[in-house]
Amino acid sequence: MKIGKVIGSIWATRKAACLQGQTFLVVAAGEEELVAADQVGAGPGDRVLLATGTVASRYCMDAPVDAAVVAIVDEGKKET
Amino acid sequence: MKIGKVIGSIWATRKAACLQGQTFLVVAAGEEELVAADQVGAGPGDRVLLATGTVASRYCMDAPVDAAVVAIVDEGKKET
Amino acid sequence: MKIGKVIGSIWATRKAACLQGQTFLVVAAGEEELVAADQVGAGPGDRVLLATGTVASRYCMDAPVDAAVVAIVDEGKKET
Amino acid sequence: MKIGKVIGSIWATRKAACLQGQTFLVVAAGEEELVAADQVGAGPGDRVLLATGTVASRYCMDAPVDAAVVAIVDEGKKET
Amino acid sequence: MKIGKVIGSIWATRKAACLQGQTFLVVAAGEEELVAADQVGAGPGDRVLLATGTVASRYCMDAPVDAAVVAIVDEGKKET
Repeated sequence: MKIGKVIGSIWATRKAACLQGQTFLVVAAGEEELVAADQVGAGPGDRVLLATGTVASRYCMDAPVDAAVVAIVDEGKKET
Repeated sequence: MKIGKVIGSIWATRKAACLQGQTFLVVAAGEEELVAADQVGAGPGDRVLLATGTVASRYCMDAPVDAAVVAIVDEGKKET
Repeated sequence: MKIGKVIGSIWATRKAACLQGQTFLVVAAGEEELVAADQVGAGPGDRVLLATGTVASRYCMDAPVDAAVVAIVDEGKKET
Repeated sequence: MKIGKVIGSIWATRKAACLQGQTFLVVAAGEEELVAADQVGAGPGDRVLLATGTVASRYCMDAPVDAAVVAIVDEGKKET
Repeated sequence: MKIGKVIGSIWATRKAACLQGQTFLVVAAGEEELVAADQVGAGPGDRVLLATGTVASRYCMDAPVDAAVVAIVDEGKKET
């Protein structure tokens, strides 16, 4: 999974019917920027854990999404 | 999911039978150019949200496609 | 999906039993070179549309392949 | 699969309910840093084998994770 | 699918129980090095065809692996 930082959100009026009710956040993960469905309640500035692929879709009740916020990170310690 | 911009479309006479009726758009997403099935009705210049992988296939009635337009983006705000 | 150009093919005598009868093409897609199963009948020089991942396997009767030619591209127009 | 080195772990209080009980390790794999669920018992400094995608989720009882530690590497020999 | 060259193998004493009996090869594919389960019998120096993702797992009796050797390449001809 990737760790990213929420930097915004997007709106879409015309979309797949099965996306109704999904919230989409723009997340910066490394040098990449991606859009993830959010059911955890993350907001701008939060560091989040992203699941991608079919896993994300299953987590979002099989909606056609390939990235989802699954957690908001509290703390990260690194030991080398 | 990725956000991309529709820059064209492609035609294919010889193709998998199960691709009949699918519309294929060429989408520029970052530095990458990819082809996505479209059932939302996007056109040239639209900023679109793409789902990739098995998720896209399921959304397109299990057609052998690995990318699909699932929404047309209205507005994107970024807060840092 | 990616668009690539067929640049050759490969043979394998020792392989998974379930790969019998599959044709494998070498396809150049951007800066990448990959091998895709072909059931559409593409040949050297053809521009082809590739589906990747589980989608490709399902299209090839669940053979252990992760890329498949699903169409031969006729024409590609780009509008900016 | 990728080989990586465990460099830390993360905590998340707010998360998907189905992630309860999962341990998340930060793993450096090549130039990339990712987070993987761990059920093998790896610790800082261990070289681990990672499975990614739906495979990882299935291994973790269908939790919404897309990377999992599936083994701790003993020894790696390379012959050219 | 990717073509790679077998450059070694790895051992893991502590691992997912369902990985018992799997052989893991280190394969160089382009600039990337990855680990793949092998059931075809490849050895050092062999050029192999790799399937990745869920496809590889299914080929290896649903073991938690995301890359598998599915063929040993005999010959590759390229025509431009």
